[in-house]
Amino acid sequence: MPISRYRDAGIPSGGLTTSIVAVVTDVVRGGRPIVGYGFASVGRFAQGGLIRERFAPRLLGAPDLMNPEGTNLDPFRAWSVMMAGEKPGGHGERCVAVGTVDMAVWDAAAKIADLPLHRFLAERAGGPPLAADTVAVYAGGGYYYPADDVSRLSDELRWFLDHGYTRAKIKIGGAALEQDLRRVEAAAKLIPTSGLAVDAMNAYDARGSREAATALAPHRLWWFEDICDPLDLETHAAVAASYPHPIAAGEALFSRAEARLLDRYGGLRRDRDILLFDPVHCYGIPGYLDIIRCLEERGWPRRAFWPHGGHLFALHLAAALGLGGAEVNPLSFGPFGGLPDGDAPVEGRTAPPQVAGIGFELKPDLSRLFATLLV
Amino acid sequence: MPISRYRDAGIPSGGLTTSIVAVVTDVVRGGRPIVGYGFASVGRFAQGGLIRERFAPRLLGAPDLMNPEGTNLDPFRAWSVMMAGEKPGGHGERCVAVGTVDMAVWDAAAKIADLPLHRFLAERAGGPPLAADTVAVYAGGGYYYPADDVSRLSDELRWFLDHGYTRAKIKIGGAALEQDLRRVEAAAKLIPTSGLAVDAMNAYDARGSREAATALAPHRLWWFEDICDPLDLETHAAVAASYPHPIAAGEALFSRAEARLLDRYGGLRRDRDILLFDPVHCYGIPGYLDIIRCLEERGWPRRAFWPHGGHLFALHLAAALGLGGAEVNPLSFGPFGGLPDGDAPVEGRTAPPQVAGIGFELKPDLSRLFATLLV
Repeated sequence: MPISRYRDAGIPSGGLTTSIVAVVTDVVRGGRPIVGYGFASVGRFAQGGLIRERFAPRLLGAPDLMNPEGTNLDPFRAWSVMMAGEKPGGHGERCVAVGTVDMAVWDAAAKIADLPLHRFLAERAGGPPLAADTVAVYAGGGYYYPADDVSRLSDELRWFLDHGYTRAKIKIGGAALEQDLRRVEAAAKLIPTSGLAVDAMNAYDARGSREAATALAPHRLWWFEDICDPLDLETHAAVAASYPHPIAAGEALFSRAEARLLDRYGGLRRDRDILLFDPVHCYGIPGYLDIIRCLEERGWPRRAFWPHGGHLFALHLAAALGLGGAEVNPLSFGPFGGLPDGDAPVEGRTAPPQVAGIGFELKPDLSRLFATLLV
Repeated sequence: MPISRYRDAGIPSGGLTTSIVAVVTDVVRGGRPIVGYGFASVGRFAQGGLIRERFAPRLLGAPDLMNPEGTNLDPFRAWSVMMAGEKPGGHGERCVAVGTVDMAVWDAAAKIADLPLHRFLAERAGGPPLAADTVAVYAGGGYYYPADDVSRLSDELRWFLDHGYTRAKIKIGGAALEQDLRRVEAAAKLIPTSGLAVDAMNAYDARGSREAATALAPHRLWWFEDICDPLDLETHAAVAASYPHPIAAGEALFSRAEARLLDRYGGLRRDRDILLFDPVHCYGIPGYLDIIRCLEERGWPRRAFWPHGGHLFALHLAAALGLGGAEVNPLSFGPFGGLPDGDAPVEGRTAPPQVAGIGFELKPDLSRLFATLLV
């Protein structure tokens, strides 16, 4: 289904879509089966065909998806069933399809366990205990407006500040550098640059990357994200060698193999740089844990991970795994983005939902949308 | 639809599938519209959902797909329409979907031009003129048999030799190294090792790669293919540093960005190594040309390219672009693999079909299958 970068869904938004899935279990509570919900996060296209033709049939055909105790679905087991016969390489699309179904499986399993996802996952991921009850968040958004761009951007950032966000990320790379610098300067009037990140959406070539880095450096931004083609590690390393402030990368990489390449050849600095891998797009939680383990072994701290997505699922993961924080999309990609209706961060931090599962039920528009899968 | 690695389709074959498409044009000849056909090559899964939901609608919705003269479909223009809004990174699945439709567009355009694909493409690809009327080929196959493996492998290789093939490629990496060496030794009794390649299907880890390379080196094979995870360039470079004979790579890489990474970090040697990129899996002909251009600029000769696939489309590309040669799958992946029915190479070389288009019509079983798309 279509999703929009803008609160005003009338603004053209690149034709992006997402997919939604429901996993209906045979566990009945209060007269109804427990159902897990998932969606394809945001930023890559929908994967309904791959899910329907390849991954859902494997799950539905599996003789058994239970944990060893026979008390619940085992999401890791379900994941292995989905990945059976998949070959190395080619980390696009299928990783999103698998992650979408994986989200619904974890939602169902956490609901069966009657635990919020972050607590259910923390027990199963073998990581450190929860770092805190709340998670650092920032507001993602700041897309280009087709008219009155800078003033509407400022309005959007004021909305963020009025609703408890202290940090935000805006887009660059889609306009001339001078225009982008005007956006940064306008944003910096509202938000301290120590909490202001820019996302170039992989737009720059080698020369554009160099020029943007030079122009941005004096602003001492929170981070400079997705600078060039995600696999152009030469350009990436060249920027990292000269740009002294934090760089963020990984939103458009989807596997442990690519994460390892980024770390080995991309010039990132483990003491300051930020890793944005989207857990849904990286084959779901098992794939994301694989990336974390690989990079931890190579010296990365968990605080470097700020999962992309801007939704409740990423928030749970940040809490469960002790990550640096999470993106929230309060105004973009509705009804998927943002916190439960009526919730707002307090001084830039928020707690993940405390209801069983992911807590999509706390977002009535989204909940109604998922319910359409069951009729 | 399901495809099998074996002539005997009763042998389990990993559940692989492919997709078929037809592009029906409004050019009428002899009372019928000209139709182009394509399929998803072999080795990755079918992409029907992505084609139906994402790429075909873009093509069908385009106001105009004609060349500037208004005389034919412009396959490069069709390709740009399909790729509109696609983001950098994530080179899996969609690349196969785009390549599948792209094949059908080229088949249709070559038929409209009343030229065999290799001649139609040679005029449009801006490359050197045709190197020769015939293309060097080898027989791809040699998969593991569930019983009597070595003797059935020998039977298969004898079939190749009896049908005009002088070179062949067999699989390793799926069994213990001793068993694989027995396969190699049995094959080497029939085919000189200067024309015998082995394909490990990306199976080896770092240690397995080293051990296999050490054990294979004395055989002086034609090439050692797809050694480790296609993105584990460290392991790849380590093997290349110690294994003196040709290495082949690239079947599980799908984009210029990945090709460039392979060249930069994978340790390949431009004077002897082989590049296997599958043109269908690499976003079709425009994506494949992009890879050739990128690697030519970096010093690679065209003779290093031996496109994966084993079918007529790859054969046309090898002829049109002056590549080293092409794989042919005489016994695998029917009815898609192999030459026109009744054709056989002569001393290891063959001419691509001389009829208009790709020439799938010269393979009646395949032609009947494609025709089911039109009812």
